[in-house]
Amino acid sequence: MEATIIYMPAVLAIIGLIYMWVKRSWVLKQDSGDGKMKEISAHIYEGALAFLKAEYKLLTIFVIGASMSLAAIAYFVPTTHYLIIVAFIFGAIFSAFAGNIGMKIATQTNVRTTQAARTSLPKALNISFGGGTVMGLGVAGLAVLGLTGFFIFFFHYFMNGEWTNTGQMTIVLETLAGFSLGAESIALFARVGGGIYTKAADVGADLVGKVEAGIPEDDPRNPATIADNVGDNVGDVAGMGADLFGSYVATVLAAMVLGNYIIEDMGGDITNEGFGGIGPILLPMAIAGVGIIISIIGTLLVKISSNSAKEAEVQRALNIGNWVSILLVAVSCYFLVNWMLPADSMTMGFFVGGAEGFEMTSISSMRVFYATLVGLIVGGVISAVTEHYTGLGKKPVMSIVQNSSTGAATNIIAGLSTGMISTFASILLFAAAIWASYAFAGFYGVALAASAMMATTAMQLAIDAFGPIADNAGGIAEMSELPSEVRERTDILDSVGNTTAATGKGFAIASAALTSLALFAAYVTFTGIDGINIFKAPVLAMLFVGGMVPVVFSALAMSSVGKAAMQMVREVRRQFKEIPGIMEGTGKPEYDKCVAISTEAALKEMLLPGVITIGFPIVIAFLPMLFGYDNLLIAEMLGGYMAGVTVSGVLWAIFQNNAGGAWDNAKKSFEAGVMINGEMTYKGSDAHKAAVTGDTVGDPFKDTSGPSMNILIKLTCLIGLVIAPILGGHTVDDVPNQDQVINSSPINNQQEVIKDVKIEKFAEGDAVTAKVTITRNTNGEEVVKTYNFEGTEEEVQQKIEDLQ
Amino acid sequence: MEATIIYMPAVLAIIGLIYMWVKRSWVLKQDSGDGKMKEISAHIYEGALAFLKAEYKLLTIFVIGASMSLAAIAYFVPTTHYLIIVAFIFGAIFSAFAGNIGMKIATQTNVRTTQAARTSLPKALNISFGGGTVMGLGVAGLAVLGLTGFFIFFFHYFMNGEWTNTGQMTIVLETLAGFSLGAESIALFARVGGGIYTKAADVGADLVGKVEAGIPEDDPRNPATIADNVGDNVGDVAGMGADLFGSYVATVLAAMVLGNYIIEDMGGDITNEGFGGIGPILLPMAIAGVGIIISIIGTLLVKISSNSAKEAEVQRALNIGNWVSILLVAVSCYFLVNWMLPADSMTMGFFVGGAEGFEMTSISSMRVFYATLVGLIVGGVISAVTEHYTGLGKKPVMSIVQNSSTGAATNIIAGLSTGMISTFASILLFAAAIWASYAFAGFYGVALAASAMMATTAMQLAIDAFGPIADNAGGIAEMSELPSEVRERTDILDSVGNTTAATGKGFAIASAALTSLALFAAYVTFTGIDGINIFKAPVLAMLFVGGMVPVVFSALAMSSVGKAAMQMVREVRRQFKEIPGIMEGTGKPEYDKCVAISTEAALKEMLLPGVITIGFPIVIAFLPMLFGYDNLLIAEMLGGYMAGVTVSGVLWAIFQNNAGGAWDNAKKSFEAGVMINGEMTYKGSDAHKAAVTGDTVGDPFKDTSGPSMNILIKLTCLIGLVIAPILGGHTVDDVPNQDQVINSSPINNQQEVIKDVKIEKFAEGDAVTAKVTITRNTNGEEVVKTYNFEGTEEEVQQKIEDLQ
Repeated sequence: MEATIIYMPAVLAIIGLIYMWVKRSWVLKQDSGDGKMKEISAHIYEGALAFLKAEYKLLTIFVIGASMSLAAIAYFVPTTHYLIIVAFIFGAIFSAFAGNIGMKIATQTNVRTTQAARTSLPKALNISFGGGTVMGLGVAGLAVLGLTGFFIFFFHYFMNGEWTNTGQMTIVLETLAGFSLGAESIALFARVGGGIYTKAADVGADLVGKVEAGIPEDDPRNPATIADNVGDNVGDVAGMGADLFGSYVATVLAAMVLGNYIIEDMGGDITNEGFGGIGPILLPMAIAGVGIIISIIGTLLVKISSNSAKEAEVQRALNIGNWVSILLVAVSCYFLVNWMLPADSMTMGFFVGGAEGFEMTSISSMRVFYATLVGLIVGGVISAVTEHYTGLGKKPVMSIVQNSSTGAATNIIAGLSTGMISTFASILLFAAAIWASYAFAGFYGVALAASAMMATTAMQLAIDAFGPIADNAGGIAEMSELPSEVRERTDILDSVGNTTAATGKGFAIASAALTSLALFAAYVTFTGIDGINIFKAPVLAMLFVGGMVPVVFSALAMSSVGKAAMQMVREVRRQFKEIPGIMEGTGKPEYDKCVAISTEAALKEMLLPGVITIGFPIVIAFLPMLFGYDNLLIAEMLGGYMAGVTVSGVLWAIFQNNAGGAWDNAKKSFEAGVMINGEMTYKGSDAHKAAVTGDTVGDPFKDTSGPSMNILIKLTCLIGLVIAPILGGHTVDDVPNQDQVINSSPINNQQEVIKDVKIEKFAEGDAVTAKVTITRNTNGEEVVKTYNFEGTEEEVQQKIEDLQ
Repeated sequence: MEATIIYMPAVLAIIGLIYMWVKRSWVLKQDSGDGKMKEISAHIYEGALAFLKAEYKLLTIFVIGASMSLAAIAYFVPTTHYLIIVAFIFGAIFSAFAGNIGMKIATQTNVRTTQAARTSLPKALNISFGGGTVMGLGVAGLAVLGLTGFFIFFFHYFMNGEWTNTGQMTIVLETLAGFSLGAESIALFARVGGGIYTKAADVGADLVGKVEAGIPEDDPRNPATIADNVGDNVGDVAGMGADLFGSYVATVLAAMVLGNYIIEDMGGDITNEGFGGIGPILLPMAIAGVGIIISIIGTLLVKISSNSAKEAEVQRALNIGNWVSILLVAVSCYFLVNWMLPADSMTMGFFVGGAEGFEMTSISSMRVFYATLVGLIVGGVISAVTEHYTGLGKKPVMSIVQNSSTGAATNIIAGLSTGMISTFASILLFAAAIWASYAFAGFYGVALAASAMMATTAMQLAIDAFGPIADNAGGIAEMSELPSEVRERTDILDSVGNTTAATGKGFAIASAALTSLALFAAYVTFTGIDGINIFKAPVLAMLFVGGMVPVVFSALAMSSVGKAAMQMVREVRRQFKEIPGIMEGTGKPEYDKCVAISTEAALKEMLLPGVITIGFPIVIAFLPMLFGYDNLLIAEMLGGYMAGVTVSGVLWAIFQNNAGGAWDNAKKSFEAGVMINGEMTYKGSDAHKAAVTGDTVGDPFKDTSGPSMNILIKLTCLIGLVIAPILGGHTVDDVPNQDQVINSSPINNQQEVIKDVKIEKFAEGDAVTAKVTITRNTNGEEVVKTYNFEGTEEEVQQKIEDLQ
């Protein structure tokens, strides 16, 4: 059974996809209402398709260009195989397909939710959350299926499906990195482009429609109104989905790379531990696969029974599903770690202070389980922190409301301060997580923490996608002039959706941050450097440059929204002028033109940020080569850049997301009325106008530049990972070229000669502590490693013999 | 002569101070005008004194507390002597005294400038710039005198004024670090507290006076008006002065520490090179001393002749003075480097790529000169960049103006974007500067680049302080109802002052950034670690924490302004109600109460940011000790923290300063009228109101939180430097305790045994290249160093013998 376990995650992913398909059919079978509802919904659906079509066109060009660059890398670097291009293209296709499924189901579920809400709140929740579930399972299922499928393929192609040595596994994983890169590239388009799209359409529709023409929001006479509604789906559904798809794949990949590194630390061969000797590599995939099934269980728990339920009950239903799935992941991590990792203990390298203090230490496998718990805790706590700083009725939002009474300026200052202050708890949490998960199980622990957190991705996305579906459902109810109780029901769902949107953003940042750290660690192992020393001036300089890029990226994304919105304004003005009878409702607005303009503008505007994201790491890697810099120094410089981008990017993501979220809810607070200086204040007051100004500033913060940071930091680290073999000393000297590797016999460490073994034993009662220093002569290079062992006399003796 | 050269910088500083005193007398002898002018000026002067008095009270408490902490450090750490407390106290006193001189002269020069402007613009410039010169020379003179004076004292106290070894010089310099720490602590109060003060008074005065009572700005009936005018001086004169005082001292100190390190790299004794063997340590002091004289020359060149001159002429006069002094510094650096550094070549350690690639290399002394040029170029370019992003009529400001037409929200977004985008050029400049100056002469080169840039501090401050003096002079002219031509003349000066204020902020950031880098490098040498490896998880975690602190610090500073302003509002309201006849001009407002409230609120509000600044490095250094962490690992963690604070702090400083500056000038653009959508738009328009909102947000950005970043990053690195010996492995094991050091004989490397010398020579024509690897056994520890030499056969032979 253990030999075929490699297929298990893929099978679980397929089960998830089958369930997704069943659920999808169920949702689509639901009543989609009558004439006007159907018509509006059809427009949104068509608009979404128009966006996808335009996106795919640009994507194709991009994928061709990127494939050529990858071909160049594969040509020059022996450990990078041409198959990386295939992996890359499929990574892009899988992610795009997942986005396609999500967009379609979301834009089809909205009207069905409206229709259900005419009679029953529980049913409306059931349908809208069902749509979210389809989206979540589509993303998670395709991510796991694609990654594990390609792993199985490459494992058989390069290694005949049997363990040979870590060098060949490195080639498998480096090629697999292409899949992750492809997925994250789509995320760049979906998250950054989508972020620009949604706000450009929003602002454009408001400026001409509400301000100039004086027609209400979501009025079907406004040609940009469909683009606006499509935008909600593009940003919150497709953007978020592609973001998490990328995180999911990258996290598991990084954990696999670090798992391979552990096998190397344990002597290069652990086939005696079962699982074909690749247990530590399989574990993250297994967790991801099991996570899909757990997410399905979680989604089944989300239901309410009473038609007169309020926000609290709906929120509780979602919380139960969420917490149960997190709990189940924790339990299954316990069993999976126990089952798949070496039985007693694992040996891995730890930094133990001092200048060169890298020491091999034998740790209990259980500590990897503790690391996964760290990840699950981070996921939970970051959502709570985000909720505190952006939640309705919480102190920070109330403070912004109070500051609105003295005008827009004080509102802005309060919002900015809130976003900035919110970095305190979030960053301390991340820092503690890095520290703790590393202390438990090294960087493998950090990657497994991320993997465990990402295991519930399907559930997280279901909760997340449910929000915009409910939002759209409310809009359709309003536009179709349905009775007010329908709107009241969708409003309950929408209100809960706003909360989950904020916490979902927190989860997305946390996942991006942990993913980047795992990729960062994988990068170091790929390049073969010992560390990244920021006391080297060029490395320090790159740390500065890396820190700057997220700031400039954010600025570009923000001003893109303005530019794209202006294009939209011009098009709407043109239609109002040129289409006869448009204001009377007899002429039909050309919705698709607005959608196309918004799409093209968004995709065009995201080019410069995209070029910066992709260009900087490439310039840093190749420019110094022209000046004759040492490859290992360049690897450190690129690592410094990656660290700068990650630290600064995470900070700016938290700052912008939370400031934007807080401004948004400060504005919303006025809808129910707020007490300012002892007076109830409502919509339309001066204070409310100030709050609207704050919200307008916050819109691109929280929906464009803030979430884009996730992509920036992950993509930066992924590009680093793909470039790594070029810089890594090991590729040129230590690893035989491709053909040799493919044809070589699976005997490890052929050239290795043990020169010296030094054993210091310290007996303590029954237990023995031994410090073993082994000097190996591998391929003419001397390598000294120190191992610490604990256990009974025989155990320690056995371990020492295993090493030799 | 060379033996007494150690006194030269101190003598030059005294000459500067004498000139300062002469200039001061000249300014004070000028006509201070008639009744009303005198009265208003007297109020501002008294307000300034009130601020100083309150500040000194709090300072005394702080200095006592900090001294006790230093006593504890001195008790536990053998290389930290009790005299560090004396140095600390004097550092604080010198900086406070410099601030005192500056505040007094600025508040006395303003009215004399007004009086001069009644008849002559050249004379008004002469007097206002004279006041600035007094301020600049006071700061620079006291900084250099204090630092060099204490160096002479400690050099004689610990080493009897003669070279012994680098270990003892380390004790001298570690004790001297107290002076720098004292100076920077005052800067914390002056810059952060001052920043809160000036904006609290400004906003408070406006809110009650202009909005509630409907009286104009600068009306003497407003009790907060004096606090407002005092605030200009507190922020722009005292704050900036203390900031640059701190940078000046810290830069020179860091360069001295790195100079000592070079002596160690060269074998620990270079007395045969003259200058008592401390040439590389003296050089930065000499540059600082000569810089004072050069600044005097520069100030003498600032004059105009025509009474009908315009802004351009005044600006040109300032530019000539500035550029000539920068040029003279470059020339004198050439001669000083040539004179004071080892004649042919110096040996220093460079990182040369690869994992452990630290290599001793022999470089020409001239390369240190090239590094100083890098510093001078950075100082010039950063001012130009700042001017581009914040200057009136430049593209970024015009774009904010255009965006004001669609409301406050778009104005805010445009301003934020401008600040964010401006980090691109600035950070690339810094990165290039780090890279280049390191490539020329290692971290000694980085520190010397900073020293050269700071050499013109007196001139920079003269230009900088002239702005608020002219601003005040205009205010006095307005309040005293002088003829309009007076105001026109002061307006010309004021307008130029606005430009110099922006570029001055750029200079201050650049100085803070380079100073921090130099301190960072000095920190690493003090702790004895080889580098800071961010691949170690705890170090990476601290990099994150460090990156977060500037953001949270900024948020606290910003919201402090709001709180302090509210206190001011309450006091003004109380006075309006309780003082009879105040609105009719018969009752006298209690200006001093407003000043006191603003002062106390400011000093109280800066406590939390202050605690964060000082507390974090201390917690990071001592908390892990309780958990048994290795000292060297802690040293790396603290280094990671310092790097995080510096990178993030520099970014946020640039972002906030430039956004604030751009908003300010966008608002000012409306005064002369701007063309928006083909229409001339003026003050009072909706667009102008939007611009006012932006300016209000920008005020705390550019005057409170932005400039505070300078202090945060420098103080963080200084605290690290003072803590360094506690963490440094060398202090406990390698260096004898204090008494032994003081009494030991000045023979270096007593325990050193050369074990192995390996020489590889490569002859190339007449020149010989040799690679020498020496294995020394120092105090039982084996140290391997590799040296590269170039030259004729004999030269190389001589160098190799010198090493042995």
